[in-house]
Amino acid sequence: MNIALLGFGVVCSGVYEILKTLPEYNVTKILIRNPAKKTMDCMTLDFADIENDKAIDLVVEAIGGLHPAREYILASLNAKKHVVTANKAVVAAYFEEFVAAAKENGVKFMVEATSGGGIPWIKNLQRVGRIDDVTSLHGIMNGTSNFILSAMTSEGKDFDDVLKAAQELGYAEADPSADIDGDDVRNKCAISASIAFGCPVDVNSILQSGIRYITKADIDWFKENGLVCKLFATAKREGDKFDAVVEPVLLCCDTVEANVPKNYNITCLYGETIGEVKLYGQGAGGLPTGNAIVQDIIDINTGNAFDISFDKTLIKTEAVTGRYYLRIPAGIDCYKDILRDVIEKEEASENSTVVITKEVTPAKIHQLTDKEKSVFIARFV
Amino acid sequence: MNIALLGFGVVCSGVYEILKTLPEYNVTKILIRNPAKKTMDCMTLDFADIENDKAIDLVVEAIGGLHPAREYILASLNAKKHVVTANKAVVAAYFEEFVAAAKENGVKFMVEATSGGGIPWIKNLQRVGRIDDVTSLHGIMNGTSNFILSAMTSEGKDFDDVLKAAQELGYAEADPSADIDGDDVRNKCAISASIAFGCPVDVNSILQSGIRYITKADIDWFKENGLVCKLFATAKREGDKFDAVVEPVLLCCDTVEANVPKNYNITCLYGETIGEVKLYGQGAGGLPTGNAIVQDIIDINTGNAFDISFDKTLIKTEAVTGRYYLRIPAGIDCYKDILRDVIEKEEASENSTVVITKEVTPAKIHQLTDKEKSVFIARFV
Repeated sequence: MNIALLGFGVVCSGVYEILKTLPEYNVTKILIRNPAKKTMDCMTLDFADIENDKAIDLVVEAIGGLHPAREYILASLNAKKHVVTANKAVVAAYFEEFVAAAKENGVKFMVEATSGGGIPWIKNLQRVGRIDDVTSLHGIMNGTSNFILSAMTSEGKDFDDVLKAAQELGYAEADPSADIDGDDVRNKCAISASIAFGCPVDVNSILQSGIRYITKADIDWFKENGLVCKLFATAKREGDKFDAVVEPVLLCCDTVEANVPKNYNITCLYGETIGEVKLYGQGAGGLPTGNAIVQDIIDINTGNAFDISFDKTLIKTEAVTGRYYLRIPAGIDCYKDILRDVIEKEEASENSTVVITKEVTPAKIHQLTDKEKSVFIARFV
Repeated sequence: MNIALLGFGVVCSGVYEILKTLPEYNVTKILIRNPAKKTMDCMTLDFADIENDKAIDLVVEAIGGLHPAREYILASLNAKKHVVTANKAVVAAYFEEFVAAAKENGVKFMVEATSGGGIPWIKNLQRVGRIDDVTSLHGIMNGTSNFILSAMTSEGKDFDDVLKAAQELGYAEADPSADIDGDDVRNKCAISASIAFGCPVDVNSILQSGIRYITKADIDWFKENGLVCKLFATAKREGDKFDAVVEPVLLCCDTVEANVPKNYNITCLYGETIGEVKLYGQGAGGLPTGNAIVQDIIDINTGNAFDISFDKTLIKTEAVTGRYYLRIPAGIDCYKDILRDVIEKEEASENSTVVITKEVTPAKIHQLTDKEKSVFIARFV
């Protein structure tokens, strides 16, 4: 099988390393952007060299971003080449379009590497779906934010110090927004829910809160109460309705999810006959993510790839609800009005007030956080 | 696809329930033993009715035990019928023979349901093996013993009280030996290691210790030291050598494995490019185990079943080593001689002595436990 790689960063280098060990698979072209990095004959600066190469059976896309990734994926599918991608942003934005183009051209479109890195999450979601309706899923799907939360919990340090350490270790980007504000998890949540529920889930419909404003005071409060904070993607389906949300949650310290360390990920599903299934592993990194891509490639080559089909139409509802913890910085008073009917408890301290709510929807909490960005929230689960 | 069920207990009833929801699959015959339980026309007391029925494509075996399970499996394979089994004892004992018979007859032999109940463990081991050598695996693979250990830890009760409660809840058999002495885990360990290492692992070569002699005093000691005790299957491969052992281990209380609750299972593997992967779920029960069987059936019917191949020859070695905790009841003194060179620490109390050893092999510890059955041991991991 002849394979082209779009990009040659961490992920495609991992793919390249792994494919070198599998004699049936040849990387015949690699698209790069920077002419100075052309270290192999098979490297090209021109996507047309790949699109027009009839000998190429499969294109791996890992250039990231929406454009030109979308155009390259569509052009590859329309040129009757299978596409395997690790690009969660472009899949979350254009999933339905890609699936339709693959179907029309009789080729496969595969997304294992978009969600959960090396964890065989998408494949197992699809396998479970052969028997059970997956009625809920959740997980820790971003290694950077889990590294930060774990380190804050174990080392008692504040957010900024831990973020800096994570950046120095290469676990966080110079601009960490996508990781700490939940954008990355939201893309993975949309992709996972789309596969699980058989319906393209609009990524923009997913309410999102991150961990940017968590403080040592929050972590101390959680510890005193036997709780651990994790950033979760959560999605539920009830009949022809679904809900999905990305936000920090508070777990009992003796749960499996609460003990996921460092930059590891965990993904969890529930199906009626199989019950709870949880999958744990490396959520990022060149070799684990490369491994996920190569698994997709092998599945395509050996006739083991599952088609993605969006045969259901589901309506967004408010199925995810819960009691919330909020830390409201001093000087912010509008919460008293916005949350008026749902405050269960308030604990005022010098610089802030901790509010615990009754059971509410994320939308209710967002009435406050949309207005006051610096409020940290977490849902009790 | 026409399917025969051998047995109609918890597991086959689960299979039957699930297959009713999948129109492509028909259960056309069911072998039962007790004529009084013949409630459906398709039930028969005579295995020959199934063996000779040319219309049957696949046989599900869940009668348990070695005989006549072995004979039924071989006869089914030789009659060119695929076989899917949940019977870990018979697979652990005759794995190589079944795999050879399936190959010879051009049919599939599938064992997902033998190990880890609803956890898609075998399939994922095989998938990982397409890219990586799995060099180690471990896991909590028995729900009964995990239920007992979890309850002793959370409720502070002694072994006998918790065992009785587990029996009342249906989590433990009237004769719990296979669960608490490690026989059940040893079968699953042999099957998992055989698949992972591509070499039939002799179940009798696996040293085994159980949890029958654990006491509240042990649990208290572990708690004081921030440790949690779990019964592990462990297997390692180094080049052309392997090792496998079943014994209680001591984990830091903030690890994922330490927090596996109730009767849940977790299975873990390590591969060079994928890194650590852990899979968590229901390790037993009619519907989860039935789900595993039906996944095998669907894989066979859709051409997604992987062949099991034993193309490697590995030699047993002593790759698993560790420091051990031992509780030696008062009156047993031979440990002083047997462990003479490896005792790191001794803590004597009224009824017993706790011994911590230096790093040793399980074989060294078995010199003592083979002689004095009532010594409880656990390896630090």
